[in-house]
Amino acid sequence: MTEYKIALVGFGGVNRGLAQLIATSNARWQATLGFSLKIVGVTDLFLGSVVDRDGLDAAALAALPAEKGALAQIAGGTAEAFNETVIKQSGADIIAEATFTNPVDGEPAATFCRWALESGIHVVTTNKGPIALHGAELKALARQHNVAFEYEGAVMSGTPVIRLAKQALAGSQIQGFEGILNGTSNYVLTRMKAGMAFADAVAEAQQLGYAEADPTADVEGYDVRLKVVILANELLDARLTVSDVTCSGISGISAADIVKAQATGQCWKLIGAASKAADGSVAASVEARLLPLEHPLAGINGAVNAVSFNTGLLGAVTVSGPGAGRIETAYALLSDIIALHTTDRR
Amino acid sequence: MTEYKIALVGFGGVNRGLAQLIATSNARWQATLGFSLKIVGVTDLFLGSVVDRDGLDAAALAALPAEKGALAQIAGGTAEAFNETVIKQSGADIIAEATFTNPVDGEPAATFCRWALESGIHVVTTNKGPIALHGAELKALARQHNVAFEYEGAVMSGTPVIRLAKQALAGSQIQGFEGILNGTSNYVLTRMKAGMAFADAVAEAQQLGYAEADPTADVEGYDVRLKVVILANELLDARLTVSDVTCSGISGISAADIVKAQATGQCWKLIGAASKAADGSVAASVEARLLPLEHPLAGINGAVNAVSFNTGLLGAVTVSGPGAGRIETAYALLSDIIALHTTDRR
Repeated sequence: MTEYKIALVGFGGVNRGLAQLIATSNARWQATLGFSLKIVGVTDLFLGSVVDRDGLDAAALAALPAEKGALAQIAGGTAEAFNETVIKQSGADIIAEATFTNPVDGEPAATFCRWALESGIHVVTTNKGPIALHGAELKALARQHNVAFEYEGAVMSGTPVIRLAKQALAGSQIQGFEGILNGTSNYVLTRMKAGMAFADAVAEAQQLGYAEADPTADVEGYDVRLKVVILANELLDARLTVSDVTCSGISGISAADIVKAQATGQCWKLIGAASKAADGSVAASVEARLLPLEHPLAGINGAVNAVSFNTGLLGAVTVSGPGAGRIETAYALLSDIIALHTTDRR
Repeated sequence: MTEYKIALVGFGGVNRGLAQLIATSNARWQATLGFSLKIVGVTDLFLGSVVDRDGLDAAALAALPAEKGALAQIAGGTAEAFNETVIKQSGADIIAEATFTNPVDGEPAATFCRWALESGIHVVTTNKGPIALHGAELKALARQHNVAFEYEGAVMSGTPVIRLAKQALAGSQIQGFEGILNGTSNYVLTRMKAGMAFADAVAEAQQLGYAEADPTADVEGYDVRLKVVILANELLDARLTVSDVTCSGISGISAADIVKAQATGQCWKLIGAASKAADGSVAASVEARLLPLEHPLAGINGAVNAVSFNTGLLGAVTVSGPGAGRIETAYALLSDIIALHTTDRR
């Protein structure tokens, strides 16, 4: 039985969810997965930081109030976020990086990942920024130091996409993919199909907690674009940057467009897609597309996400599931740890 | 680079498809998967058998006419099916078993699997019979001899279900599943929704090659029942036998039922399902169910198959794709070989 020491970097919903899972499930993981997790450090720009090499109480961490400097309430804790200390000096085997996504330069998450990988520490993350903007560099760093760099949760939270494609569909000749990769925009389109106006549907998505106060990144496709970059580079061996992906959103779609689509047996979806040409070049886009009702993504409604892989040997294989959520995304970190646990690094 | 010697047992569409893939893709597999395959034997009750430890020509095998005794046309071949010789004496590292499914006792496929496993030879198969009826025994035999026994293709041809659940969804707390696991019956229901009568839809499915001359096993749920047994035992640690699964089909559904369902925003699907209760007991069934249109399986139309896993941490995660097809099912054998190649048996 292995016990991994883990440090949590960023202590918002996702890493709190992981602390909660550790508090409730460690004993079962020992029996079923062959490992358990011991939290040896936590750091968060708002909450502060704490290190304890003997292990912190996961349940107490999960119950911590969301108040500025709250980690000072834990024995040995402080209201300051000593990120570098927690990452490099806590004795962690694994860093769970779940800070905010910075779509411009991926910082400070990318630096947090670099610190860990250079120190020979595994990194699991749900953060799109470092992968979409610095993926090749960070993967090379992980290889160089023979540690894991896993990020299943960066695309569809806990719904498996990257490992599904790379492991379960290995050898199937993936030539491209189409995805519904943003729950907010899909929820808005679903509600518009039921007769709601765009602005009202956005407001409802905000009330339900799907959409941010500023929904621009969701409805204009910027969030999907980062995910398309990640998937295209991962599954199609592309080397795309964000500017290589043409991008438009759903804000231009009117109630009349929706009605017209339904009348012709079609539906509008915000699709992030990429495909590989015979010469190896990869074209990628984010745009609202009219799908025929028999398309594998046409029936994906509400906040659900989905990716349909276009494979040479199987045709379309589609996976759908949650694309967000606290526990759902925390599970992605667990699935990354399962993957690193079962990988032979000798 | 590894070269696996493989013997093909049963040389219908699936193993012919594998021979075709080997003929066209071996060089790429060497580069991308780290192994290649050399066919050292073929046996088929109708076509005869052949052994050549130096390797048979995969393209010539794939092009063999479907005539009784045709393997005698290959150098060293004979019109008799020397199954035991091909399995035990061809020097094969792997047996690809793709004979017909016998839903009563799983024979002769189960014996073919036993011969191989007892001889320390890996088995990959797409045959539901041995798994549904003798799965526990054969898995124990494989463990005892430290060889692989893989059967991803027994449920949804090449669409990953077993490995998706056991690997990519490990730790997600799978509590049950619902599946559309028979393409013929789903095609019939889809056509009935478009106004066709049951008998006409079955006839069309037969014309298209989806349905057998005797469609009973498809439309009465017997085919799905075998798959439910396999999935429940594999994913829910059940020990079900076929008689533990209540089973009914779609032949009792009338055009009026279909119309009534549509009027209430629902649709009929033939669902194979199992779920685990808090006490660990597993209940399983095959039956036509009325699904609300927002159900993850409601939009699965035509001959497509799908399984929706009910997980504790992610809610519903659904995979859909082909459930049959020559090359699609041959890919399942390839995916099994990839799995055994990447498993550390030390």
